[in-house]
Amino acid sequence: MAVRTLTVKENILGANNEKAEENRKLLDSHHVLMINVMSSSGSGKTSLITRTIQQFRDKYRIAVIEGNVSPSIDAEKITQNNVLAIQLNTSGGCHLDAQMIRKALDTLDLDRTDLIFIENIGNLVCTADFDLGAHKNAVILSIPEGDDKPYKYPVMFVEADVVLVNKVDVRAHFDFNLDTFPGIISGMNPSARIYPISAKTGEGMDRWFSWIDETLN
Amino acid sequence: MAVRTLTVKENILGANNEKAEENRKLLDSHHVLMINVMSSSGSGKTSLITRTIQQFRDKYRIAVIEGNVSPSIDAEKITQNNVLAIQLNTSGGCHLDAQMIRKALDTLDLDRTDLIFIENIGNLVCTADFDLGAHKNAVILSIPEGDDKPYKYPVMFVEADVVLVNKVDVRAHFDFNLDTFPGIISGMNPSARIYPISAKTGEGMDRWFSWIDETLN
Repeated sequence: MAVRTLTVKENILGANNEKAEENRKLLDSHHVLMINVMSSSGSGKTSLITRTIQQFRDKYRIAVIEGNVSPSIDAEKITQNNVLAIQLNTSGGCHLDAQMIRKALDTLDLDRTDLIFIENIGNLVCTADFDLGAHKNAVILSIPEGDDKPYKYPVMFVEADVVLVNKVDVRAHFDFNLDTFPGIISGMNPSARIYPISAKTGEGMDRWFSWIDETLN
Repeated sequence: MAVRTLTVKENILGANNEKAEENRKLLDSHHVLMINVMSSSGSGKTSLITRTIQQFRDKYRIAVIEGNVSPSIDAEKITQNNVLAIQLNTSGGCHLDAQMIRKALDTLDLDRTDLIFIENIGNLVCTADFDLGAHKNAVILSIPEGDDKPYKYPVMFVEADVVLVNKVDVRAHFDFNLDTFPGIISGMNPSARIYPISAKTGEGMDRWFSWIDETLN
């Protein structure tokens, strides 16, 4: 039978951009790099950030802003690595905005911080629409989610500086085509870096670490 | 170091409930059952619905309302099974609401429909907050996402009538504990049915099919 398409327009973008620009200027004035890490739930944001902290904690002063819809164990996991974690609880809200990030930044000593990770709320839909004032966007897509996700959730991938394809350690068990995937991303976002990784085993993480080093220096 | 918690309250719930109740009454007056299928992206909503249609297409008259943030191939996949698929494109919006569903229902011949599936937008956060007028909520969590997700995204699981644990065919490769998981769900939602399934291989799907049969009759 036929497909009927109804378009339901909805303005979900607030007057958020000005605040985001303020955040970026504030960070620049203190020489702080902020990276916004986005993905669906369960793709590996916490694992990625934890591994990255372990790599860099003796080299850079790191803080993490954790977005959560409810009180979570992520912040405790992160602080086991001896960095400051600020938990932003949205009380059910599906995204962070620049104003929330500003509140978190105001609690940090930015002169003693080199690198801030935002662990965004776990979904591929609304998070990408809100500029938070980060300098870079890192998007994680994990192998079990499927290689068609950039078509279904394009905004996230169009705005990514880095696309991390996580859980490559289980690639033998899923249909995700790692050969054609870079072409899909390049088609919508030619400048995006694409790094297949396993935050669990450490496979491929060196390229991600090098990218952070380059971006910070 | 310490964890600092900032609470950012946000009212994301609109005056949606009245419309949802109207939808439910409309469906009841035509003896139609509507099931709202929710999950993160890539958990297997389309596969579940496709398999279920294949099971029941000679027994029930089925329609599918597809929520998408951008034009998608899901509706085409569904219509290959000879049922009517209505695509609701939210233009980036992260959730469906009762008013959008009403527009879709108005395009259907409800006297010639027994069962409607809503394939909700792929995320675990904001979709559950909006009553769409469905009679039942089915939530899919897939093995690769991890068994901690009910703690992180509780609303979705508290409101589920059925929790489908999908992709059990790859359970050997992930840490998901299928023995303790039912206890986690029962703790927050004692009446929820919990069905481990593989929409890919068909494993465990008979209990889901039986539940639909019972609910319809």
